[in-house]
Amino acid sequence: MSQAQIITIGHELLRGEIVDTNAAYLAHELRKLGFTVSSIHTLPDDKTTASNLLERLLPEQGIIMCTGGLGGTRDDITRQMISAVLRRRLVVDEAGEEHLRRWYVSKGRRFDETDRMQAAFPEGGMLLPNEAGLAFGFYVRDGQRHIFALPGVPGEMKSMFTRSVLPQLDKTDLVPKAQSYEVLNFIDISEYTLDRIVDEIIGNYTGIEYGTRSSDGLIRVRLESVEEGLEDCLVAIENRLGENVLCRGERNLEDVVGELLREKGRTLSVAESCSGGLLSKLITDVPGSSDYFMGGVVSYGNEIKKTMLGVEGKTLAKYGAVSENTAREMAVGVMKRFCSDTALGITGIAGPGGGSPNKPVGTVCICLAARDGTVQVETNRYLGDRKTVRMRSANKALSMLFRYLKGEQ
Amino acid sequence: MSQAQIITIGHELLRGEIVDTNAAYLAHELRKLGFTVSSIHTLPDDKTTASNLLERLLPEQGIIMCTGGLGGTRDDITRQMISAVLRRRLVVDEAGEEHLRRWYVSKGRRFDETDRMQAAFPEGGMLLPNEAGLAFGFYVRDGQRHIFALPGVPGEMKSMFTRSVLPQLDKTDLVPKAQSYEVLNFIDISEYTLDRIVDEIIGNYTGIEYGTRSSDGLIRVRLESVEEGLEDCLVAIENRLGENVLCRGERNLEDVVGELLREKGRTLSVAESCSGGLLSKLITDVPGSSDYFMGGVVSYGNEIKKTMLGVEGKTLAKYGAVSENTAREMAVGVMKRFCSDTALGITGIAGPGGGSPNKPVGTVCICLAARDGTVQVETNRYLGDRKTVRMRSANKALSMLFRYLKGEQ
Repeated sequence: MSQAQIITIGHELLRGEIVDTNAAYLAHELRKLGFTVSSIHTLPDDKTTASNLLERLLPEQGIIMCTGGLGGTRDDITRQMISAVLRRRLVVDEAGEEHLRRWYVSKGRRFDETDRMQAAFPEGGMLLPNEAGLAFGFYVRDGQRHIFALPGVPGEMKSMFTRSVLPQLDKTDLVPKAQSYEVLNFIDISEYTLDRIVDEIIGNYTGIEYGTRSSDGLIRVRLESVEEGLEDCLVAIENRLGENVLCRGERNLEDVVGELLREKGRTLSVAESCSGGLLSKLITDVPGSSDYFMGGVVSYGNEIKKTMLGVEGKTLAKYGAVSENTAREMAVGVMKRFCSDTALGITGIAGPGGGSPNKPVGTVCICLAARDGTVQVETNRYLGDRKTVRMRSANKALSMLFRYLKGEQ
Repeated sequence: MSQAQIITIGHELLRGEIVDTNAAYLAHELRKLGFTVSSIHTLPDDKTTASNLLERLLPEQGIIMCTGGLGGTRDDITRQMISAVLRRRLVVDEAGEEHLRRWYVSKGRRFDETDRMQAAFPEGGMLLPNEAGLAFGFYVRDGQRHIFALPGVPGEMKSMFTRSVLPQLDKTDLVPKAQSYEVLNFIDISEYTLDRIVDEIIGNYTGIEYGTRSSDGLIRVRLESVEEGLEDCLVAIENRLGENVLCRGERNLEDVVGELLREKGRTLSVAESCSGGLLSKLITDVPGSSDYFMGGVVSYGNEIKKTMLGVEGKTLAKYGAVSENTAREMAVGVMKRFCSDTALGITGIAGPGGGSPNKPVGTVCICLAARDGTVQVETNRYLGDRKTVRMRSANKALSMLFRYLKGEQ
């Protein structure tokens, strides 16, 4: 299988000021094309150090994708570094230079030698246009190495990858025959148990590899095969774990629940206490969610639970804000007020403060209510920080709704 | 300054299935301690390939922090890789092995040789306890190299870094005298303009470096100095850009606004349409936000805007759901119903659907209302995808509230 390497440049990465989402994006896209990404390296934007490291790292063959270090400021060293490692001089593209000059003049800025170098590339290569920003990228082939340099700004990088890199890869006939792969998503099962079961089933097939990954209550299994028979294996796993199967593909609970609501013509509203709007946010992350999501109430204060959701004062007094009774009245209350077909209520203690011996941090009560009279309440205790408790609560609420909507079929 | 290198292991990273947040966390923490992170490398979990790469990369001196590849499954190769590169055999810690065995037995699982290796470390080193999970980490010194191996699960990694790595670093006297640095945060200014102004001011000082970074409407400037005089420079920048200064430090708008609300004893409620709960979610990301946040309504449907917020039917009919009039009635309505001192209302078109020639995707109306009769409404058009439009809207609402609370002083 064809190899790929990813190089990212930038002091923001080495200082931990930002997370390297470019590397993850490129790794994902290259993987989809069938490349194996063999390593990812973040180099400093010091020309000498970066060149020395790259000299030791650069593979003899394959795709090398660089991001960052292309603009016209003092930090930008990718052109120099690659030209040094390949021992090729930098040449400036005339049309590119003219394009830059016009832009600078139109903004009333002076156009100097540093700015001009944004249209340079190692001799024998070519500029790649930037549809979303100013700095050009470039492509240069060196024996069996194909080096692409893209901007560091994610929007510009993605646009250049799609518009320039993909067509160039097609031309160079480098794209390998993709492996077949599929992702299966599971709920309400531990990663450990799932791993053991998948491992056992996989044993009946040849050439299939897999990996598991846990994410706030959702477990993903990615299966890959270079041979036939992946589909049979997927079906075997799905049959064995039917109860716990969410869906195939890189999708989240909110995507799957949204699709089910839309299919069935049902609507949803939510009442949130400790999740504080996170559940609403997840649901509305999905484009078109206004078709089935009526909205919700974030009821942080007890008074709001009463006035906006109709939770009884005596329920709060007797059982407390974090109780199955309160969760139930929240869900039923929001369903009534928002005239929705289904509703979810979440109340709990996300921490770090607010815990007690009886109700420690991480205690969360979740209720699903539906127009047909269904009322399901669960209490769980989640370990982890505030963010984890909130995410697990929101995902648990969505998985209860998923099971309910599935169960109706 | 002392050098550090970060090595992360895992096929999920090379496949682009997850973003490498561990590297960013470690880079940030090491930077705070005064280390310079010289490079970050993500290696495959194939023992031979990873060892070969590490052989070429491993610096002669400094801190080397590895994450991932420590558990008891087939992907876990960090112990083998480091023992191979250092040419030291692996030894198993007896107490560690006993700890693992007891855990396995308690779960009714068999305890085999692979599992046992989770208590192994290169000879001459030591195990690091894992307070948040099962697999031990380890520390080994090799000449001027100090190698730490931590788990890949972020919660376990962070816990081990804090509880075991930091004390060990203190003992080894490696922690350098930190550079002084500070982060300044700005709002309502372009990164380009800010960069020019900071660059000009910096020219009056020696030994100060800076970098800018833009994040959904917030611009951060990080300044560093090995010499005295950073504070004077910070004050000069703050005086020049007073209007646009948000705060110092790695803080977000919701942190600063929350602090102001708490200081002034004011409360807040929010009414959200296109931001769909994101604003509530941001506000409640802050621990203790229940002290000032009453809650909110996510009013996705027009009917909900009327029944839950009291927006007039004729306002919706005449001006539409995305209008300054509707934003105003949403903010005033939620403030009244939640009995809060201040309120924010957001209505807009996050996209990708729902745009029109008059109100294209990205059009967002935001209103700030307060008990003293203040009502401020703004309409903006944000470029970018759904996620960007939503984040910029929420941040804009928070920055309006920030300015209002500041202005009162």
